[in-house]
Amino acid sequence: MIQRSIDSILTPALLIDGPTLNANIDRMNRQVEGLGVSLRPHLKTVKNAELARRMMDGHAGGATVSTLAEADYFHAAGITDLTYAVGIAPSRLAPVAERRKAGLSLTLILDHPDTARALVEYARAHSIDFRVLIELDADGDRAGLRPDEHALLDTANILREGGQGPAGVLVHAGGSYACRSQNALTALAERERLVAVEAANRLRNEGHPIEVVSVGSTPTALFAERLDGVTEVRAGVYSCMDLVMVGLGVCSLDAIAISVLTEVIGHRRASGELLVDAGWMALSRDRGTASHDLDQGYGLVRDARGGPIDQAMLVRATNQEHGIVASRSGESLPLDHFPIGTRLRILPNHACATAAQFDHFDLIENDGLTRLARCYGWG
Amino acid sequence: MIQRSIDSILTPALLIDGPTLNANIDRMNRQVEGLGVSLRPHLKTVKNAELARRMMDGHAGGATVSTLAEADYFHAAGITDLTYAVGIAPSRLAPVAERRKAGLSLTLILDHPDTARALVEYARAHSIDFRVLIELDADGDRAGLRPDEHALLDTANILREGGQGPAGVLVHAGGSYACRSQNALTALAERERLVAVEAANRLRNEGHPIEVVSVGSTPTALFAERLDGVTEVRAGVYSCMDLVMVGLGVCSLDAIAISVLTEVIGHRRASGELLVDAGWMALSRDRGTASHDLDQGYGLVRDARGGPIDQAMLVRATNQEHGIVASRSGESLPLDHFPIGTRLRILPNHACATAAQFDHFDLIENDGLTRLARCYGWG
Repeated sequence: MIQRSIDSILTPALLIDGPTLNANIDRMNRQVEGLGVSLRPHLKTVKNAELARRMMDGHAGGATVSTLAEADYFHAAGITDLTYAVGIAPSRLAPVAERRKAGLSLTLILDHPDTARALVEYARAHSIDFRVLIELDADGDRAGLRPDEHALLDTANILREGGQGPAGVLVHAGGSYACRSQNALTALAERERLVAVEAANRLRNEGHPIEVVSVGSTPTALFAERLDGVTEVRAGVYSCMDLVMVGLGVCSLDAIAISVLTEVIGHRRASGELLVDAGWMALSRDRGTASHDLDQGYGLVRDARGGPIDQAMLVRATNQEHGIVASRSGESLPLDHFPIGTRLRILPNHACATAAQFDHFDLIENDGLTRLARCYGWG
Repeated sequence: MIQRSIDSILTPALLIDGPTLNANIDRMNRQVEGLGVSLRPHLKTVKNAELARRMMDGHAGGATVSTLAEADYFHAAGITDLTYAVGIAPSRLAPVAERRKAGLSLTLILDHPDTARALVEYARAHSIDFRVLIELDADGDRAGLRPDEHALLDTANILREGGQGPAGVLVHAGGSYACRSQNALTALAERERLVAVEAANRLRNEGHPIEVVSVGSTPTALFAERLDGVTEVRAGVYSCMDLVMVGLGVCSLDAIAISVLTEVIGHRRASGELLVDAGWMALSRDRGTASHDLDQGYGLVRDARGGPIDQAMLVRATNQEHGIVASRSGESLPLDHFPIGTRLRILPNHACATAAQFDHFDLIENDGLTRLARCYGWG
């Protein structure tokens, strides 16, 4: 049997460093414990049962998913309490009903009276109960109702009259990715909390028995100073971290557990650049650091063991299966230091986007590699 | 049995319109026939055996792939002549040798004397012959040797002395994606041809029996006016076309055979925008039209049948499973025209990148949908 090692596996390959991941999980666990709330990890980053187990260990509150394919995969792995944190499309009510009948407690979110009506009608017509949270908006970033919107009460009342809750409220301050200081992150975390608590109280005042007050994103979860009134925090990318999180000041480079292993396949002599076999197919086209003070291109280059390289090198450009590695300064790289066949690791801008390009990864632990599958697609 | 239809399949879903694809294939076939060369279709866009069959129909010259996973998938589908058009990584010589022993004629490319040395050494040590083309550079865009470089002869001589060819030369003018007029495309196509013919002749003058002179990219293939001296053209995206090709003037919007079906899951009342269930996971992060005269955001929105919508609508922003649809002008959309549950189609910037997010697609033909698998990952 051939030992799997960083020198022998085929490239491009997705690597996750186990000890770094474990340390990231410990950090978030300490944070939510200190704030006295429970954690419902978002599994859309790792999409793997073993890493999900590590993230959920010590927490009673189930997990979060972003697709029905994830729901099915994690249900098959024995996780029965999942929140599907994307506003439910009416056409997905039937598949969700099937899964509830199969024993999966899949909690839905919605933010529109018409979606509530469609859900109530489906429930009545098919004699099934759903579990529903109303999605709130803290920052205008994506979806959700504001606590003072008339539609909030409308939506809740439609659900109640149809016997479908609501069981609670949920907010995701995705605007945290645009924050540029730790103070701004702390302020947005507090706004996320206030929006959730205010909406929950408004609904309670109207007689709705709100159980769940769910908040979260990795940056707000890690920089919140208080979470009074909140019942659970959701976060996912904290497990792997990435260059976007480094750019936001959420973590240091050493906390990035995820990377893409690649091999030098050419030398661009005229420009002093390397050609590697990780293009956008492996790295994704995510340029999440393009607007940061430090633009990391398509990823920051490390040596095959994950250690820093003398020159600051990044992936300047990508084609489907090619990446061009250049020095940050634009000066020629010493190509002889990186002969054809040299292996390098690339730290990605966005862990979720890069991981999504792979249907498996290698977990590095005790100097050995273990190949693990990732859930993929929408089912 | 439930009939698969655009109204019933789960979203997000990748759609390929059969008649449009067929017309695109006809156009390329007429073009290469007119120029008197054969076509070796690149299968990295479609990654599906049925569509590969259509692209290869009438051509004797095999096909092109970008990964070993594609090579295995198409070999299993009965295609035995493939060019692996990414500079070979030394660590992939062993897996390539395995495939050659299994009956796959997998032609390799390389552009560095050291890669040639590694290949020759591997061939000698393992008593196997490879088939090798030397990669050329027409535009400084990515990889390859220039016809006048000393390394060209060096590389060829190393291969010959090791009994490993070279069998020919290959060039890809990826710079065609930066051309901004049809004249510029025609000029680059001529430069691609000249580079290939010049290098082939230089090698022939040194006694190398060059059989293959391979050129191509979709834009240069469609705008070349002559291909004397060339033996084959490679192109792939012409089958599906996309907004980048429209932006380059290569085709019209009607030629785009590929789209993502999505469903409206929310209304952003404050900004007059729609929330849909196609985010970057479905569309990819490709922003290939960002530098064009007409920036198409993350994709141009059509109705569920593929027809135009009154307002010019595009996907302004994406999260993992959410897209925000806005009018191009920035004015509020008439949200009541797009109730929750409305289905829309999104034409992508880059067919290869968007298709890569899916492991299957629905082929639309005779008003019916057929679900077909796509090859995925690197194996």
